[in-house]
Amino acid sequence: MHIRKQRLLTPGPTPLYPPALQAMMASDLHHRTEDFRKLYRSTLSSLKEVMGTENDVLILVSSGTGAMESSASNFFSKGDKVIVCSAGKFGERWGEIAKAYGLNATILKAEYGQVVPPEQVQAALDAEPATRGVFVQASETSTGAAHDVRSMASIVSKTDALFVVDAITGLGTMPLDIDGWGMDIVIGGSQKAFMIPPGLAFLSISKKAWARAESADLPHYYFDLTKEKKNAGSGESSWTPNTSLILALNAALEYIKSVGMDKLVENAQLLARGTREAVMALGLDLFAPGSPGSSVTSVRAPKNLDSGVIVKEFRNRFNSIIANGQGSMKGKIFRIAHLGYFDFADLFAVISELEIILNANGFPVEFGKGVAAVQKVYAESAVGNQEAVKV
Amino acid sequence: MHIRKQRLLTPGPTPLYPPALQAMMASDLHHRTEDFRKLYRSTLSSLKEVMGTENDVLILVSSGTGAMESSASNFFSKGDKVIVCSAGKFGERWGEIAKAYGLNATILKAEYGQVVPPEQVQAALDAEPATRGVFVQASETSTGAAHDVRSMASIVSKTDALFVVDAITGLGTMPLDIDGWGMDIVIGGSQKAFMIPPGLAFLSISKKAWARAESADLPHYYFDLTKEKKNAGSGESSWTPNTSLILALNAALEYIKSVGMDKLVENAQLLARGTREAVMALGLDLFAPGSPGSSVTSVRAPKNLDSGVIVKEFRNRFNSIIANGQGSMKGKIFRIAHLGYFDFADLFAVISELEIILNANGFPVEFGKGVAAVQKVYAESAVGNQEAVKV
Repeated sequence: MHIRKQRLLTPGPTPLYPPALQAMMASDLHHRTEDFRKLYRSTLSSLKEVMGTENDVLILVSSGTGAMESSASNFFSKGDKVIVCSAGKFGERWGEIAKAYGLNATILKAEYGQVVPPEQVQAALDAEPATRGVFVQASETSTGAAHDVRSMASIVSKTDALFVVDAITGLGTMPLDIDGWGMDIVIGGSQKAFMIPPGLAFLSISKKAWARAESADLPHYYFDLTKEKKNAGSGESSWTPNTSLILALNAALEYIKSVGMDKLVENAQLLARGTREAVMALGLDLFAPGSPGSSVTSVRAPKNLDSGVIVKEFRNRFNSIIANGQGSMKGKIFRIAHLGYFDFADLFAVISELEIILNANGFPVEFGKGVAAVQKVYAESAVGNQEAVKV
Repeated sequence: MHIRKQRLLTPGPTPLYPPALQAMMASDLHHRTEDFRKLYRSTLSSLKEVMGTENDVLILVSSGTGAMESSASNFFSKGDKVIVCSAGKFGERWGEIAKAYGLNATILKAEYGQVVPPEQVQAALDAEPATRGVFVQASETSTGAAHDVRSMASIVSKTDALFVVDAITGLGTMPLDIDGWGMDIVIGGSQKAFMIPPGLAFLSISKKAWARAESADLPHYYFDLTKEKKNAGSGESSWTPNTSLILALNAALEYIKSVGMDKLVENAQLLARGTREAVMALGLDLFAPGSPGSSVTSVRAPKNLDSGVIVKEFRNRFNSIIANGQGSMKGKIFRIAHLGYFDFADLFAVISELEIILNANGFPVEFGKGVAAVQKVYAESAVGNQEAVKV
C-alpha cells in the first residue's frame, strides 16, 4: 500500500469546501431561537443572491428527489397534462414522479447521450395547449448532456404551463437566468456545486407557480411548500431543519459569493472543456459531444475495455472515485465529474491518472498528452492568461 | 477569481491526514485521567513501533527545535567537545544551540546543497578522541540534501560520543534503523511525515545517552527528559500535554502503521524521484544532485528568473504554497516538498502547475513533459506495475 488520498470525482457527492465542514462543528444550536433564525435568513438570502432570482427560494431537508416530488405535488392536480423531457435516468425519474401522482404525462424521450430539442417541446405544447407543466433536467447527470433550458423557457413561458427545471447539477455549472428566462421552479441540491454534503435540497418558485398552488389538489404533507414559505418568512423551517448543513451551506454560499456565481460557472465550463479536450487528445470519444454539460463529462470506454475496469482502476490505483455509466450505459461509458470544490490542479491529477490507467489496460497513450490539453485550456483562458507577478 | 484550493507543498507544515484532524474534535478530555493515560500510552507505543526502536521514545509539547535543544541540555556538560555537521540552516541551528549552552563545538561545514561526508566525521573524531557528541541532520530541509547517517552512525557508535540526529524531515522519508545503526538521539516533529499540525516533537533516546544524562550538568527545566521518561512510564506527561495533537498523532500513527513505515518511506522516495525526473525533464537543475533527500526537492531557478517569482506564481495562480530558498539561496532555488499526506496525484498536479508557470515566465517547456516523467516513475514502480483489475 502507498498513500492514496480519496478524491471524489463523482457528480455528487463532490469535493467539500473545508470551511463549510468546519462550520458544521457549531451545530450545538437550537432551531427555534433568534440565533438560528438569523442564520436561516442569511442562508436563504445568500441562496437567492447566488441563484440570481427575485422568486421565493426555499430549503428542504431532503435529497434533490424530494424537491422534485414537491414540485409535482404542490403545483399540479390529478390528471393534469404535463410534458416530461427524458434524456437519461433523471428524466425517467420525472416520469416516475408524474406516474406516482397520477399526472397525465407525455414523455419526450431522447436517447442516452442526446437531449430533447426545444422544437420538440414546442411541438408537444402546440399539440396539447392544455398542458399544465413541462419537466426537464438542465444537466442530465447520468449522461453529462445539458438541455437548452433557455430556449425551452422562452417557449414554455408563453403558455399556461409551469416550467419545472431540475438544476441539481446545473446550478453553478451553467448560466441559468431564472427570472430573465422565466423558469418557474428551479431545483438544486447541497452535494453538487454547493460543495457541502448531501441532505439539503432547495428550489426557487415563481409567482406563476404559487398562483397554481392555490388550486392544486395533489396530496402532500412533509413537502408543503406553502407552509414552508410562510415559515421561511419568519426565519424558520416547517420541520426540524438540518442545522449542521445549514451552517455548512451558509459558509459555502459566502465563499461562492466571494468567487462570484458567474465566475463559478466560468470555472466549471473551463474545467469541462479541459476534460473534453484531454479525453479527445487521448483518442477517446465523448458520449454527449453535441450538448455537453459542465458538471460531469461522460466518455466512451475504448473498444474491448469495460468502463467498469477503468472505474475500478481509478479506485484501486489512486483512490479516486469516478462513476460508471448508469442503466444501459453501465460498462460502456465512464463519467468524470469536475463539480463542487474542484480546481485545475484536481483536473491535472485526474487526467494523469487516466493516462496511466489507459496505458496499463491495453490502450497505449502518450504520457502527458491529455494533461497538456488541459494545460493549454488553462493557459489560453482569462485566468491562465494573467500577467506574471514581479518580485 | 476562480476556485483554487490551498495546497501545502512546503517541507512542513505538510498536507494533513483528515481523520487525524477529525480526531482533534475529541479533545474535551482531561489529561490526568485514565482515558488520557490510555491514549498517551497507545500513542507512545505506536510511535516506538513506527520509529522501529527499542529505545525510549518521548513526546514534547514544542516544535522540533525544542527537542533539539533538549538533546543538548540533557546529555552534555559545559565545555564538552562536540562535532556539528552543518550543511544548511538547520545545521547552523545545531551550532547555535551548542553555543548557547557553552559546548565546545567543531563545525564541519558543507556548502549549501552539499553534505558533510562521513570520512570527515571520522577524521574529526580521530583528531579529538575526547569528543562527547556528534550532531547532524538526517535530511537538511533548507537544501533538500540528506546525510549518510548510516555510515556516520557506524563511525560514531565505536566512540564514546553520542550520535544526535535531527530526523525531523528524515523520519518517514528515508530508512533510519535507529537500533541497528546505533543512533543515540533521533528527533522527529509532528508537522512533517506524521501528517498533523505543528506543536509536538518527539525523540528516541538510547541507553548510552541515558547513562550520560546522569553526569550531565547543563541547566534545563521544561525540557527535563529524565522527568519526562519517568512520567511517560505511568502514561502521563510532565507538563500539560497538547491533548488535541496527541489525539491527532494517535490517529495518524494508526494510519502509518496500516500503510507500513517501510512503504511510507518507499512512497516518499518514489515521489522524490518523480520530482527530480520531472524537473530534469523540464531542463532545470537540481540543487542537491549528489545526495538528494526525499522530503523536499530543491531546484535551481532558470537563469534570469528569481525563484521568488516562481513561489509567488504558484500561490497566485494555483494557491499552492511552495518554499523559496533560505538564507543565501533565497531567490536562487525553490523547494517543492512531497511530504506528509501527499500522493502521486498531488505530484501530477504540482508538476503541471510548474510547467504552466515556467511557460508564463519566459522559460518555455513542452506541456506535459514533466508530468510524463512522473508518470513513468509511477508506471515502472512496484505500485504502478500492479496487475490491472478485472470486472
